[in-house]
Amino acid sequence: MIDTSPLRNVRCVLVRPSHPGNIGAAARALKTMGLSRLYLVEPERFPDPDADARASGALDVLRAATLCADIDEALAGTEFACALSARRRDLTPEVTDAHEAAAEVIDWARRAEVAVVFGPEDAGLGIAAVSRCQRLVRIPANPDYPSLNLAAAVQIVAYELRRACSGRVAPDVQGTHLRPAPHEDVEGMIAHLEHTMRATGFLDPARPGRLIQRMRRMFARARPEPEELAILRGFLRSVGERREH
Amino acid sequence: MIDTSPLRNVRCVLVRPSHPGNIGAAARALKTMGLSRLYLVEPERFPDPDADARASGALDVLRAATLCADIDEALAGTEFACALSARRRDLTPEVTDAHEAAAEVIDWARRAEVAVVFGPEDAGLGIAAVSRCQRLVRIPANPDYPSLNLAAAVQIVAYELRRACSGRVAPDVQGTHLRPAPHEDVEGMIAHLEHTMRATGFLDPARPGRLIQRMRRMFARARPEPEELAILRGFLRSVGERREH
Repeated sequence: MIDTSPLRNVRCVLVRPSHPGNIGAAARALKTMGLSRLYLVEPERFPDPDADARASGALDVLRAATLCADIDEALAGTEFACALSARRRDLTPEVTDAHEAAAEVIDWARRAEVAVVFGPEDAGLGIAAVSRCQRLVRIPANPDYPSLNLAAAVQIVAYELRRACSGRVAPDVQGTHLRPAPHEDVEGMIAHLEHTMRATGFLDPARPGRLIQRMRRMFARARPEPEELAILRGFLRSVGERREH
Repeated sequence: MIDTSPLRNVRCVLVRPSHPGNIGAAARALKTMGLSRLYLVEPERFPDPDADARASGALDVLRAATLCADIDEALAGTEFACALSARRRDLTPEVTDAHEAAAEVIDWARRAEVAVVFGPEDAGLGIAAVSRCQRLVRIPANPDYPSLNLAAAVQIVAYELRRACSGRVAPDVQGTHLRPAPHEDVEGMIAHLEHTMRATGFLDPARPGRLIQRMRRMFARARPEPEELAILRGFLRSVGERREH
């Protein structure tokens, strides 16, 4: 008997899925592998009879889906998140494959809330979502036609997650006792940093470039702990106070 | 580059599929993983617009599908075959899981024609088909709901077949594009940070505590790139300049 309890801490986040049938099929894919927590960010049509039909015996997963207004809401409370994407971009988190990522996700899920994030069928995930994740996950595919159906991608990841539950424990790469702060607290600090960068004149709001994006990427790698965020925010506050004197 | 040529010797056999949509989705699943040879034994409806729709960019695989009157016709010329089934029966070939089976299939496919055989959506494969195969393959699944969609099962098997082509798939080494700055540059930024923290009054030199130590630990995890260090130092400089006005 394998211990599948970590699967209870895994959210499957679908960002702006356009076909309700895929949402239903994703729910089914999750349930077949013992996952149950579906998060939907701005689905184009939901609920929908097509979603129900394709969910088959996983209507319970579909009915319990959490609707979210944006990616931050879907990631609130998570300590580790993976973004699925076939595309490479300039500024991305660390890249890994589905098999390796699953081991890491399950390792985190033994003690924290985690998320795997899938983008819209055609466009894939945007940089806003990707830059909020710690890993960019790739499913090895035919380079001439890497276009997996959304629910098929969910199925592969869910399959790897279930397998990872029985597998060797992933080497706890970074920091055995790391207790990262939840997503929303990191975002709060980044907002504070951006505010302060504007106040000192370092960041020109008219030409922000990719400065904050780069910072977000760096902090996604760092996964700051609450104490570290407290230090950073204390420092930023001291910068603000000095300015007002 | 992995050698995917063994995939050319792998037939995917669907026995009596009842939903044409699943046939199309299976074609797509195959193509995404570099497989192309679809065999259909007594499909209920084929060709069919639903099959075309779900095949998406894999219409070529669908159009080239081989129609067979029975399982023997589909297996003619093969030297090794696996049957997918969630059920155990009294008389079955050796049972293995999808991951192990894929390695064996690819091993055979380097020198012979092989087949993986999937049953009808509801009933699964009958003993007639199963008993013609050398292995009974199980996809690990939720015992309370092991009911994978047909195309989803094809997707998982195709995925494992592709992975098996590379032997052990090397993870696309973590941080492919990460180019961390050299140690001394990180230390330089931390010294700058410490200096600025004192200047704003945030850090009391008389009682520094472990504040800088914590920052150093966080940046050690983050492994900042040169561009990120440049941003941080630019920001710190802007804080210093403001103070001196």
